[in-house]
Amino acid sequence: MHFTSDFTSDSSADFTPDSSADSSAGFTPGAAPDASPPAVTQRGFVLDGVPGVLWQPAGSSLRARPLVLLGHGGGQHKLGPGVVERAHRCVTRYGWAAVSLDAPGHGERERTAQDERFATEIGQLLAAGRPISAWVARHTAALAERAVPEWRAVLDALEEEADGELGPVGYWGLSLGSVIGIPLAAADSRIAAAVFGLTGHASQVEAARRVGVPVEFLIQWDDELVPREGALAVFGALGSAEKTLHANPGGHLAVPDFELDSSESFLLRRLGRKAGADG
Amino acid sequence: MHFTSDFTSDSSADFTPDSSADSSAGFTPGAAPDASPPAVTQRGFVLDGVPGVLWQPAGSSLRARPLVLLGHGGGQHKLGPGVVERAHRCVTRYGWAAVSLDAPGHGERERTAQDERFATEIGQLLAAGRPISAWVARHTAALAERAVPEWRAVLDALEEEADGELGPVGYWGLSLGSVIGIPLAAADSRIAAAVFGLTGHASQVEAARRVGVPVEFLIQWDDELVPREGALAVFGALGSAEKTLHANPGGHLAVPDFELDSSESFLLRRLGRKAGADG
Repeated sequence: MHFTSDFTSDSSADFTPDSSADSSAGFTPGAAPDASPPAVTQRGFVLDGVPGVLWQPAGSSLRARPLVLLGHGGGQHKLGPGVVERAHRCVTRYGWAAVSLDAPGHGERERTAQDERFATEIGQLLAAGRPISAWVARHTAALAERAVPEWRAVLDALEEEADGELGPVGYWGLSLGSVIGIPLAAADSRIAAAVFGLTGHASQVEAARRVGVPVEFLIQWDDELVPREGALAVFGALGSAEKTLHANPGGHLAVPDFELDSSESFLLRRLGRKAGADG
Repeated sequence: MHFTSDFTSDSSADFTPDSSADSSAGFTPGAAPDASPPAVTQRGFVLDGVPGVLWQPAGSSLRARPLVLLGHGGGQHKLGPGVVERAHRCVTRYGWAAVSLDAPGHGERERTAQDERFATEIGQLLAAGRPISAWVARHTAALAERAVPEWRAVLDALEEEADGELGPVGYWGLSLGSVIGIPLAAADSRIAAAVFGLTGHASQVEAARRVGVPVEFLIQWDDELVPREGALAVFGALGSAEKTLHANPGGHLAVPDFELDSSESFLLRRLGRKAGADG
């Protein structure tokens, strides 16, 4: 895999990519669990035209290390603030590697005419108070068809980067991140556990049935973008023997912080490893 | 409050009430959080004809100590194995006191003709594969009408026992424990947080609306006794600004152990205190 950028930040400070080209002060190989968290190395890459970012403990190898795929939400991108914060927590709290990609039509990627139309029309529909869920589902399903093979190609490249020994792979992505993640987890047996949610349309049910790994699924009870019935139906359809639904009051963007903690604990139980053992 | 029995068991051993009339070996006042858990004192009482049990760290006072009300399930009683295990965890892991009562028609209490009829008929209906939820709801709603004032009288007595300074009060009860707990939490402002679940009937919606405290609510996705729609409606109706729904696959009796851990963490965040600080 060819990396287009590479820098290391002291993760115990705020994450400020511009200010710290190489400061690994916080990284102590083989440190005890309570030691300072490791510094984080962030590397950009482009694979077959898809820009992505890989985070890992500074100076560490990908070999046998748990890896979390971070799928961003609609309108976001691979370096959106939520994604970057989550990636840093993966590395510094749990000793995982993390990777994100720009979804089709997002971030640095070219927008097709259809992407442009979507971005314009969704604003108009929302402003007019029109129901958008079926329309969003149709558009994002088309994005997912393009995104699934892209994620699988990135997994292939990272597997090579890890000398053929990828650690357990988790997926974390809500909303658009789940529209893409559900068919990805259905298609790729390397994914061992997933956090999904804020999504639910009949078109996702068939892929959900083919998901067999443990899933934590988030619903916002008053989600203005996702009909509750549709979200419950997707959870119900998941083929996983182990699946757990967490629902909380509030709208699409109001997922409580404790659910983000919970989804990390969920992944930790399935993927293993904790910060402090990162050498 | 007049206690009818009193014994202390070393909680680090298995709980065997008969074998240890007074062994407080495990109790170290003012011990650090990692020290042995406190011994547990269990005292029986009868209040206005209602038999109950109070658990607390040996040698401790109720004053300002978090108290968890444990509501048992249908067909169980104040000293059912699940209740006793939960009570011991409350004391040894979190430093709480815990109390349970025999619900009307349960445990040591006299059964009315109606109670007898219920116990006979539910077996017949289940054996015949007949739907029972409306019928169970009607009967248990009648039990709850009797049980709510009983719990409130016990809270009054425990408040006196605590010299007027009860600590924060939590409620934990599923199934019948929720049929009683929901109207109790709606009626008594001393209850500060509650774990409910495995219940859901239209007759509970009105009381649920009047509940205002944080709630964690458990649903079993394939519950053979509780229709999923009814359970979701009761969760939706809860008036609480903070409420969180956890749903898992499986039947009425298959609540995963990790949910019991989760409900304790939930109560800990609301009630405070941890084992080790019990002097």
